[in-house]
Amino acid sequence: MEKVKFAIPKGHLAEATFKMLERAGYEIFNGETTYRPTLNDPMIELKILRPQEIPVYVSEGLQDLGITGVDWLRETCVDVEVLLDLEYSRVKLVLAVPKPWTEINSLSELLEIFSKQRMPLRISTEYLNLSADFIKRNPVYGKIYGNSDPLIVTPWWKKGKNVKVALFLSFGATEAKPPENADAIIDVVETGSTLEQNDLKPVETVIESTAILIANKKALKNPTKREKIFDVLTLLRGVVDGRKKLHIFVNVNSKNLDMLLKSLPAMKRPTVSPLSDKDWFSVNTIIEKEKFMEILPTLRKLAQGLVVYEPRQILPLDEMGLEGTSGVEH
Amino acid sequence: MEKVKFAIPKGHLAEATFKMLERAGYEIFNGETTYRPTLNDPMIELKILRPQEIPVYVSEGLQDLGITGVDWLRETCVDVEVLLDLEYSRVKLVLAVPKPWTEINSLSELLEIFSKQRMPLRISTEYLNLSADFIKRNPVYGKIYGNSDPLIVTPWWKKGKNVKVALFLSFGATEAKPPENADAIIDVVETGSTLEQNDLKPVETVIESTAILIANKKALKNPTKREKIFDVLTLLRGVVDGRKKLHIFVNVNSKNLDMLLKSLPAMKRPTVSPLSDKDWFSVNTIIEKEKFMEILPTLRKLAQGLVVYEPRQILPLDEMGLEGTSGVEH
Amino acid sequence: MEKVKFAIPKGHLAEATFKMLERAGYEIFNGETTYRPTLNDPMIELKILRPQEIPVYVSEGLQDLGITGVDWLRETCVDVEVLLDLEYSRVKLVLAVPKPWTEINSLSELLEIFSKQRMPLRISTEYLNLSADFIKRNPVYGKIYGNSDPLIVTPWWKKGKNVKVALFLSFGATEAKPPENADAIIDVVETGSTLEQNDLKPVETVIESTAILIANKKALKNPTKREKIFDVLTLLRGVVDGRKKLHIFVNVNSKNLDMLLKSLPAMKRPTVSPLSDKDWFSVNTIIEKEKFMEILPTLRKLAQGLVVYEPRQILPLDEMGLEGTSGVEH
Amino acid sequence: MEKVKFAIPKGHLAEATFKMLERAGYEIFNGETTYRPTLNDPMIELKILRPQEIPVYVSEGLQDLGITGVDWLRETCVDVEVLLDLEYSRVKLVLAVPKPWTEINSLSELLEIFSKQRMPLRISTEYLNLSADFIKRNPVYGKIYGNSDPLIVTPWWKKGKNVKVALFLSFGATEAKPPENADAIIDVVETGSTLEQNDLKPVETVIESTAILIANKKALKNPTKREKIFDVLTLLRGVVDGRKKLHIFVNVNSKNLDMLLKSLPAMKRPTVSPLSDKDWFSVNTIIEKEKFMEILPTLRKLAQGLVVYEPRQILPLDEMGLEGTSGVEH
Amino acid sequence: MEKVKFAIPKGHLAEATFKMLERAGYEIFNGETTYRPTLNDPMIELKILRPQEIPVYVSEGLQDLGITGVDWLRETCVDVEVLLDLEYSRVKLVLAVPKPWTEINSLSELLEIFSKQRMPLRISTEYLNLSADFIKRNPVYGKIYGNSDPLIVTPWWKKGKNVKVALFLSFGATEAKPPENADAIIDVVETGSTLEQNDLKPVETVIESTAILIANKKALKNPTKREKIFDVLTLLRGVVDGRKKLHIFVNVNSKNLDMLLKSLPAMKRPTVSPLSDKDWFSVNTIIEKEKFMEILPTLRKLAQGLVVYEPRQILPLDEMGLEGTSGVEH
Amino acid sequence: MEKVKFAIPKGHLAEATFKMLERAGYEIFNGETTYRPTLNDPMIELKILRPQEIPVYVSEGLQDLGITGVDWLRETCVDVEVLLDLEYSRVKLVLAVPKPWTEINSLSELLEIFSKQRMPLRISTEYLNLSADFIKRNPVYGKIYGNSDPLIVTPWWKKGKNVKVALFLSFGATEAKPPENADAIIDVVETGSTLEQNDLKPVETVIESTAILIANKKALKNPTKREKIFDVLTLLRGVVDGRKKLHIFVNVNSKNLDMLLKSLPAMKRPTVSPLSDKDWFSVNTIIEKEKFMEILPTLRKLAQGLVVYEPRQILPLDEMGLEGTSGVEH
Repeated sequence: MEKVKFAIPKGHLAEATFKMLERAGYEIFNGETTYRPTLNDPMIELKILRPQEIPVYVSEGLQDLGITGVDWLRETCVDVEVLLDLEYSRVKLVLAVPKPWTEINSLSELLEIFSKQRMPLRISTEYLNLSADFIKRNPVYGKIYGNSDPLIVTPWWKKGKNVKVALFLSFGATEAKPPENADAIIDVVETGSTLEQNDLKPVETVIESTAILIANKKALKNPTKREKIFDVLTLLRGVVDGRKKLHIFVNVNSKNLDMLLKSLPAMKRPTVSPLSDKDWFSVNTIIEKEKFMEILPTLRKLAQGLVVYEPRQILPLDEMGLEGTSGVEH
Repeated sequence: MEKVKFAIPKGHLAEATFKMLERAGYEIFNGETTYRPTLNDPMIELKILRPQEIPVYVSEGLQDLGITGVDWLRETCVDVEVLLDLEYSRVKLVLAVPKPWTEINSLSELLEIFSKQRMPLRISTEYLNLSADFIKRNPVYGKIYGNSDPLIVTPWWKKGKNVKVALFLSFGATEAKPPENADAIIDVVETGSTLEQNDLKPVETVIESTAILIANKKALKNPTKREKIFDVLTLLRGVVDGRKKLHIFVNVNSKNLDMLLKSLPAMKRPTVSPLSDKDWFSVNTIIEKEKFMEILPTLRKLAQGLVVYEPRQILPLDEMGLEGTSGVEH
Repeated sequence: MEKVKFAIPKGHLAEATFKMLERAGYEIFNGETTYRPTLNDPMIELKILRPQEIPVYVSEGLQDLGITGVDWLRETCVDVEVLLDLEYSRVKLVLAVPKPWTEINSLSELLEIFSKQRMPLRISTEYLNLSADFIKRNPVYGKIYGNSDPLIVTPWWKKGKNVKVALFLSFGATEAKPPENADAIIDVVETGSTLEQNDLKPVETVIESTAILIANKKALKNPTKREKIFDVLTLLRGVVDGRKKLHIFVNVNSKNLDMLLKSLPAMKRPTVSPLSDKDWFSVNTIIEKEKFMEILPTLRKLAQGLVVYEPRQILPLDEMGLEGTSGVEH
Repeated sequence: MEKVKFAIPKGHLAEATFKMLERAGYEIFNGETTYRPTLNDPMIELKILRPQEIPVYVSEGLQDLGITGVDWLRETCVDVEVLLDLEYSRVKLVLAVPKPWTEINSLSELLEIFSKQRMPLRISTEYLNLSADFIKRNPVYGKIYGNSDPLIVTPWWKKGKNVKVALFLSFGATEAKPPENADAIIDVVETGSTLEQNDLKPVETVIESTAILIANKKALKNPTKREKIFDVLTLLRGVVDGRKKLHIFVNVNSKNLDMLLKSLPAMKRPTVSPLSDKDWFSVNTIIEKEKFMEILPTLRKLAQGLVVYEPRQILPLDEMGLEGTSGVEH
Repeated sequence: MEKVKFAIPKGHLAEATFKMLERAGYEIFNGETTYRPTLNDPMIELKILRPQEIPVYVSEGLQDLGITGVDWLRETCVDVEVLLDLEYSRVKLVLAVPKPWTEINSLSELLEIFSKQRMPLRISTEYLNLSADFIKRNPVYGKIYGNSDPLIVTPWWKKGKNVKVALFLSFGATEAKPPENADAIIDVVETGSTLEQNDLKPVETVIESTAILIANKKALKNPTKREKIFDVLTLLRGVVDGRKKLHIFVNVNSKNLDMLLKSLPAMKRPTVSPLSDKDWFSVNTIIEKEKFMEILPTLRKLAQGLVVYEPRQILPLDEMGLEGTSGVEH
Repeated sequence: MEKVKFAIPKGHLAEATFKMLERAGYEIFNGETTYRPTLNDPMIELKILRPQEIPVYVSEGLQDLGITGVDWLRETCVDVEVLLDLEYSRVKLVLAVPKPWTEINSLSELLEIFSKQRMPLRISTEYLNLSADFIKRNPVYGKIYGNSDPLIVTPWWKKGKNVKVALFLSFGATEAKPPENADAIIDVVETGSTLEQNDLKPVETVIESTAILIANKKALKNPTKREKIFDVLTLLRGVVDGRKKLHIFVNVNSKNLDMLLKSLPAMKRPTVSPLSDKDWFSVNTIIEKEKFMEILPTLRKLAQGLVVYEPRQILPLDEMGLEGTSGVEH
């Protein structure tokens, strides 16, 4: 029977990915010491690869399933099926310039000022296509340089004609490139503190990105692989949903029960069980985590003894088809 | 809108603090790489400071809210509002002397013997005020030296007249000061193993200490800040309470139900739900964690299939006012 | 009152052991910095020892209780009470030979080929007794060497007559011994990736092993110690069982309730509680973790809103006597 | 006055580079904590960059001077001045295939077998140009595919027509790519043990590489920068030469002196000084390190008391012009 | 016989101190694992203490000899003998303010602007005395606040009257205090990169500091201790001097010898020895390290084969009395 | 041509061994990441093994050459050629008992007191043979137990009859065994601080040990291997000798020259070279490191400008035969 080849991202995505898989019920062996960790499901073969490589390998069929970021899916423009937004490793791809440049607060201003001063603009980035597209779509760029493509410089070759706006491929530590090796950068930021420490400020957002689960389209047509992929999807979706909810238990006096049920639209169809003391009921229900602070005052007036859990997984149990799974546009 | 400035302790308190905040539902970014981690609540600004510094900064209003230890609150004698005993990092501030001094087992004996041998007594400590007070309150000290203050030696200045009993400010590793650099120490101990390894024995306890949540009194009068501080307090209190309880589920035959409810006073008002098998009920309730082993024999006789959880948070839901929160005397 | 002396294994068993104790409700202090961590139960004294040493110390009564592996219990052949299979650190003790030896795929073939080529066979292992027994039981060995014991070589002394088959005591890194220092090895493997990296292949399994809880037989006759040991056993058994189950909550319409209860034999006697919406019920029950994927399709058809938990502990509550605890044969 | 911008390689070249600079007499501050370490020469500004990036930045004039590898200089084909072969980090760029493929021991065989079996050949590498050139120069490739370029696959774009032979850009851990993600690799090896551990064998060498000192050609025409670059070159060359020599001191009886001088052509023009004992002389000279073991027997016969040093630096003191410095062909 | 108690600084001074002691010929055991490392000289007892503590302990006679920084010697104002400037860990104690405050570039401007805006000025520092003195000596301070002492705030007590200018004792990470917890800082800087990363700029230098060797004055009068202290001083001075010199060997033709000796005043009294080839001489001498690049052109013209060493130690051998050793004023 | 298989010890001997090999002129690759580091001499194959294993493997011919400790050579009693005392990792094997046992200060007292109190004496050790011999040679042991061998307890088997004195095999952390798991220990100590921290005191020394170079006797008869082993021996001996010497250079006025040469018997046959200033001479010579402080006063009176080096290697150049190399008795 054919195994499902599942590509897991190396680097800062790795830890969050391992945590999610473990919460989904998988056990991972040797996750930190080998590129081929073992899973407690023998029909799934893990391989650790760089997030940049995963879209390519999944689309080429060298891997059946993969976790990568929206950023690299977009950059590589490959044809794969996006199964699930995993909602972690949330980052923005931003254009950032040195903080002291108080007069530059947009790509347009950046392009204009460099053009006026007749200085070539050098931008360091790992995202050559997204950056080139983003720049070409800028109206000021069009006005000055027309349809000419920005120059792209990599160790292997150069591409594009417009030497006035050059994109240099960065091999990491992009934030340390300015000012000697770049005028600006296009890089992912999580909280912005790395930019801050390097005296840079974000001026525009190119795209937003999270971790996603992607699959090879042919693999989805193989019945054995499809079923296994579907299992992974189901379990991971349960974790994604579980993280956004809280399961709460409260005790309520019978005289307050109706009031409580009515005044809490957040609690849709809660479970109501009698306590041993006949005048009291236990009410338990799933709520949105973000509504928690909001309903606290009502609970305080009408109920007692609030117990809170974060569910390990929540599965909607409506028909989860692969058809409807492409939550991330691309 | 004004943000709440929340000071988090560096050092060995840090890890337990991060865990508690996370269990309360907060997410912390960059907690280990910057002095200003980001929280998923944008209205709270974290700053990592040393526990010694936090009472001073909170009382001066440079921070609105802080987590520190009872030890440093007492040492600094500042005027802040104590909101909650967080009940972790439980330590004792003790007077310790070399283990081989079998004849010295109290501060009185220590003072007497050094006085008799006409040797100056040198004590190394980070807690200059608490130590000086503790020594001056000792009756033997009064008898020998009257009202004279012990000498206090810091790198910046000296204070106090009585050169026969000197407190040297320690900059850490206090336990390694004796015997060359101190005769005795006054330092915090958790399990005593550090003292043990340095051939010291504790002879008296000065105070006991745990981590506490403190607030600036002016900040509590600012309505916006007060509300946000109250949210933090509510969520943290839920964690403190949740840690002391267990949520148990058992199945019980209808014929044993009354007996079970009666014989378990620890289970106050449990929830009773029918099983699909009509003769059986599921009983679930919150109990004190420390009563668990005690009720096991009764459960074993009357019930089946015990399932145990530690709740993430438990909120009593009675009116939690800031008025009634000062659980820690000072 | 006498304390229970509890030996905890150092090395790769340590982390899993600490996790299990913590989940059982114990708090451990200084687990990584001393050989005598402190527990929140003052009547239990922990000592960290090597797994090889623990069976000997428990059988000699220098420790009352211990966690070690089945492998070392078998190797040492000591007389102790096995209380519980802890079911973690699952390993196999295997005979492994260089991968390129395609013609050797069993101990018999290994013995035959070395015998034919008149070369002494050298095997590196930490398990001298298990290995010698295993080899002597092999029919090919008997045919060639009769009743002669394999030579055993340690730094302290040699034993056994048959210099044609020699067992060399390994002090770790056994997998790196071939080809210079051994022809084959007998060593524990978890996932096989270490063998793989050293160009070895497993050809036979000697025994399988997991972590186990063992006790000194005299200590079990001391009433005070027996009770405390029983508490540890109860709490750990709850964790072992809890790990194999899931607690699920679903909502089901009254019209599907019977169907659901019938078609899910995995759900034995679930709890059924009404929702606030009268047509619906909440059903919660404990299932085997490994049945989870199997019952998902049925749940999907008949129920809604599946919430999943892994219980912290599950205790069967039937009379857990020490008599019936020896789940591991030896 | 203009400073010289000196690019230092990050990664495994970093440590050897820092050691060489320190032996040359430079002191480096914060070499491990910042991308801009400080040097004790204020006219030189260090910047840490990836070796892949350095040839590009030096040729573009964003850096004046740089240390990189011959491999990346060749791969990028940029126009810079090569000043010195630093002779450390000696590696080979090799084509490696799985060890079990006993019938494949050259690129020709690899190409032939994949072609015959009508399977696409996938090679993972960081060196796209060197690899493509190497493959195209192979006669078997020409015979089968003519002048068609191998397909090159990167996350950003594809290039080349021949889908039967594809080069996939690797983002590190190239040795772990086969067998799932590549059939063969072209990667640098130092000792071969990484290949060994990944069950690969080298079959052809593409190029050999060491660390080199390169300079921007315009910077060499700026008199101030040229002088500073020349200082760096002089000091580093002294270290390179010093590492290959030994300075030896022996005592020799006057009757053996001539014999010694004659029989040791390795010792060219040694210094001869009288000892206090008139019959003896001290002879000291610089020899090639690799001749050391060879001359030991002669020294043993004719001399006494050999003292050995490795010089910190050796400078030939012949006219070291920048003209004559291009020791590395490219 | 009495041992010499030698205090070694913990923290970032530690590594450089260990290196210097080792180069001086001492061997240190357990330097990283205990507060009492052992030396190969049994008459010296090492103790690791914080640099802040060492001047106090040496002046009190609890330690005989110590290595600390000039900064802490000055801050503590204790009466000890300064034996040697060790010339490593060279730092400046500077006043730094936020970089964006372009209008503030001196203490005077800082005081003026805060005074005008009627805002209290808060400075964070570990150096309370040096900072208070430095501020009081500023003419602007005198003009505005007269003779009133700045307020000093520590966890233990407050001192000084002028609440408009307050010094807050910092417990480390002083650079992270602004802007929330301080307006400016007075802290030591080595290369300035820490200030840079925290968006601060230095505006005034309070003092400069290096590591120094200090001794208790009474210990110097004890003949046994004095001799041992003198040995330590001799060996360390040799290292300090050796680090500033180079030992060079060149070969020179007899016709160039006089010219070489004349034109190189840096070479004072070099050794001249004949080579085996009668027309040549070897010249070796000690030069100042910083003259090395300067004399290279002359050497290149007149000599051949330059060999360079950094001496382990250089001892002037003139009468090194303790009298003349106080190279650091205080 | 046959390679020499050279076993290098893992663990705390490893670092010192690598340093010595590097100073001898060898370069080691991957010393920390593999059990088979590569050497710059392709005719030597390194293998990293535990020091306990090395004597056995060398005597069995599975390794030709090895570095281990005298302790393990003695413990294993194998027949190998000892080539060189490497003089590092100097330790003592001692019997240690709890510090509080003030009345026990020898093995005799230990045996007597346990015998009187009718308590079995349990000793933990890794050195079973050395310990058993040492105990049996003790006259008190003979008097009480006659010729009966102490009981030896290992995980694999027991040996010896006398259960009143038992040796338990320790698997490391021997110092932590008392008091629960042993009454006394026999273990190696370097500085004694580990004993100190575990509240133990050494009472008798069993043997002293250093690192040694050993060879298989057959390998020494193989001409190719013999020569290569001889090279290793020569280079290592040079390092051992070099470490004990200093090379000093002083300048001396012609009027003091004779006096200097006469009054310094430590300087045997120094080199005397004229300075450019005709009245002065340079004198350089090799002295014993430990005589250095002793001759300083004389040098100070008669000479100037002392320059000190530690030679990398010193080779006596007298006929170093393998015959005369067994400097360590066994």
